[in-house]
Amino acid sequence: MTFLQEVVDILLAYIVESFDRETKVIDFHYPNELLQLNNWELQHEPATLDDILISCRATLKYAIKTAHPRYFNQLSTGLDMVGLAADWLTSTANTNMFTYEVAPVFVLLEYVTLKKMREIIGWPEGRGDGIFSPGGAISNMYAMLLARFKMFPEVKEKGMSSVPRLVAFTSEHSHFSIKKGAAALGIGTESVICIKPQTEIWACATCFCVVSFPVQGFVPFFVSATAGTTVYGAFDPLIAISDICKKYNIWMHVDGAWGGSLLMSRRHRWKLDGVERANSVTWNPHKMMSVPLQCSALLVREEGLMQNCNQMHACYLFQQDKQYDLSYDTGDKALQCGRHVDIFKLWLMWRAKGTIGFEAQIDRCLELSEYLYNKIKDRDGYEMPQHTNVCFWYLPPGMRYIEDKDEKKKRLHKVAPVIKARMMEYGTTMVSYQPQGDKVNFFRMVISNPAATFEDIDFLIEEIERLGHDL
Amino acid sequence: MTFLQEVVDILLAYIVESFDRETKVIDFHYPNELLQLNNWELQHEPATLDDILISCRATLKYAIKTAHPRYFNQLSTGLDMVGLAADWLTSTANTNMFTYEVAPVFVLLEYVTLKKMREIIGWPEGRGDGIFSPGGAISNMYAMLLARFKMFPEVKEKGMSSVPRLVAFTSEHSHFSIKKGAAALGIGTESVICIKPQTEIWACATCFCVVSFPVQGFVPFFVSATAGTTVYGAFDPLIAISDICKKYNIWMHVDGAWGGSLLMSRRHRWKLDGVERANSVTWNPHKMMSVPLQCSALLVREEGLMQNCNQMHACYLFQQDKQYDLSYDTGDKALQCGRHVDIFKLWLMWRAKGTIGFEAQIDRCLELSEYLYNKIKDRDGYEMPQHTNVCFWYLPPGMRYIEDKDEKKKRLHKVAPVIKARMMEYGTTMVSYQPQGDKVNFFRMVISNPAATFEDIDFLIEEIERLGHDL
Repeated sequence: MTFLQEVVDILLAYIVESFDRETKVIDFHYPNELLQLNNWELQHEPATLDDILISCRATLKYAIKTAHPRYFNQLSTGLDMVGLAADWLTSTANTNMFTYEVAPVFVLLEYVTLKKMREIIGWPEGRGDGIFSPGGAISNMYAMLLARFKMFPEVKEKGMSSVPRLVAFTSEHSHFSIKKGAAALGIGTESVICIKPQTEIWACATCFCVVSFPVQGFVPFFVSATAGTTVYGAFDPLIAISDICKKYNIWMHVDGAWGGSLLMSRRHRWKLDGVERANSVTWNPHKMMSVPLQCSALLVREEGLMQNCNQMHACYLFQQDKQYDLSYDTGDKALQCGRHVDIFKLWLMWRAKGTIGFEAQIDRCLELSEYLYNKIKDRDGYEMPQHTNVCFWYLPPGMRYIEDKDEKKKRLHKVAPVIKARMMEYGTTMVSYQPQGDKVNFFRMVISNPAATFEDIDFLIEEIERLGHDL
Repeated sequence: MTFLQEVVDILLAYIVESFDRETKVIDFHYPNELLQLNNWELQHEPATLDDILISCRATLKYAIKTAHPRYFNQLSTGLDMVGLAADWLTSTANTNMFTYEVAPVFVLLEYVTLKKMREIIGWPEGRGDGIFSPGGAISNMYAMLLARFKMFPEVKEKGMSSVPRLVAFTSEHSHFSIKKGAAALGIGTESVICIKPQTEIWACATCFCVVSFPVQGFVPFFVSATAGTTVYGAFDPLIAISDICKKYNIWMHVDGAWGGSLLMSRRHRWKLDGVERANSVTWNPHKMMSVPLQCSALLVREEGLMQNCNQMHACYLFQQDKQYDLSYDTGDKALQCGRHVDIFKLWLMWRAKGTIGFEAQIDRCLELSEYLYNKIKDRDGYEMPQHTNVCFWYLPPGMRYIEDKDEKKKRLHKVAPVIKARMMEYGTTMVSYQPQGDKVNFFRMVISNPAATFEDIDFLIEEIERLGHDL
């Protein structure tokens, strides 16, 4: 107990430090350096508890301070104290989600929370099904698995050799997990048709494909529309897509891993209009709702389908002669056997903030994005494509007037990586960058960190200019 | 900070209580009752921090005390203080495993630990690959995915329609995740041939199948041998199986989710002789090594295969122009995008105990099993099949002399569920039961709880007799 309290003291000090803007976001070292900065090897003999405390301190010293108000690197940032407390409690309870018997409270809280999320999606009386899975990629894979099973239930026993060749549609800007899922499920990445994402033509192009593929012997079975793309934060036109899916009897999935949280905001939820027509929705509270990692939900409109799709009736785990209502033994609808308790963090934060608290937090993040957008849109040295996530190039003064477009592009491509590397070496802030299609490396600024303020946005811009001015 | 400390105080009190034998393992209530015992609903308005503390207390009140010395219900039991501290630190660091950039220390520790585990398996210089995945079922699914890709790499792009019909072999007592994986991957459950598990004929039967299936147009691609079956704790003959796999060029997987930890024990590792010939091994430190949930590793002999099998080159996540050695960006070899940090618990416990500490802990669990086995083998009213996990029937006095075998079986089938329900109502202990094949419900006693003592084993027997005497 003394040992645990000592660790807690270390953690509390780390938390205080993480929120302090004077602290570095990262104390960066190259992998080979870091391997040598401490003795990380596993030993034959035990260490003392003092050594263990030293290891804890060393681990935190070189960790990224993801709670830092100037950490913008990922879609998941920030650290909520109630969420953290809930995660500590979850670790202490140290159980699994598969049966009511071993996780009575957590199973009930998952039930209550999934129902609430389905109500927010707009499904009548919150009916349907769902599960918390280890991340959005797995949630998306579940959706594809369910879509295939719904159309061809024999695939479960007989495999893909019993079904026609399938084809799925998504946009070019969708998350890579759609292709990864298709590869794993034996559908193949080539059967995922990526459609150009311009809002106006998405629906038409999808419609065209849906009509043309059967002619080639393929059966369209799955459309994954994205609500909040990873890079731009763009939203596919859900209503138009749902019309096509309905007409051709195709499973409509909405990957709202990033944007699903906007459903909690009365101001912004229109971006997901039509989501209630989907067959399944991925929604990651560990992103814009700042629930500690991981917390990803897959919501499914049809009841019973997950169970039928995944159950194996293992009699050694899901005994049928128990004394309680077996519908609470949810484990057999999962791909996992043991499943980590991810629900309590979300449930406790929801209690602490109320629905209106989450709404305010989300609105605030989008307000900060807008502030950043407005601040740089006419500022010297910035160019940007307009989207919900604020994506932009910073052009150092020496590059602004290069006339040769190819030359300019080539040089600009190298700017973001250098600025990013410098950010990490100084440890002052972190923001992501990437190329996309024919666009060279640009910064992608996402704000999901409730600790961030207008001043932090100002700081980011100044820091980019300071670090990139000479390039 | 005050709030966090208050939660910690609640957790510390809960831990003390959990280890106290006077405390109930469970304060059991039926789902409908439990729903009414507290207000679990999510509200529009925020709750006060005092309300949140009340919710934490209520959650723990009705949770299962998995650390309790008399909790034997699952393969994962017990609570290690260093493991718990490590999990609290992990929650506080709140990051993801996909890149070195966001998890420098954790990525290195995963590298160090996987290498050590591969050395223990016996692969030269610990070479190979691996990943920590969300549970043994997913680890097993990874193995099947890799086996298929190794034999038919075109399946990634072209799906199952580009490959012949595949067939996999495992024993009838293997974990249900082998079939679940086959269903998900589009191979189909019917393509998983379950062989009778008697040690002597396993290898012969497998050999027969491997030879006969190609005649029917199937390609054998995967054998999953089990090291520690879920119910009996039995070990398949790995050397004989590896000979067949080698001869016919089939991927050999060892599902050591339960028994893999015996590799840490000089006394017991002979049960896995031949494991070093496997292509992949599942090993869950969250079971017999008592690492907090979840901590499951898949170890792979061939380097680079996981990356080739799963990578999608998402340029927005795995930028190729970063400043550091990109081999530490391990995320693209996973099926997940974000991946929870499961490594730190294992690493810190390993440091605290040393290899010899884990060995002692495992030896002790097996010693307790042996004690139980010896205690009941000649005791009135018990019958058992002999295995590593101690599986047994308790026959209440009134049933011992029933001569009609069918009648006896029928009545005996109902004994374990009633005793188990009574255990939960009294809350004194918990142990699992199940039928298997033609065997009616029997108790399965597994000891992975480091807090258990000889006296707890004695207590279990007395309690079963007390609760079942009148049946």
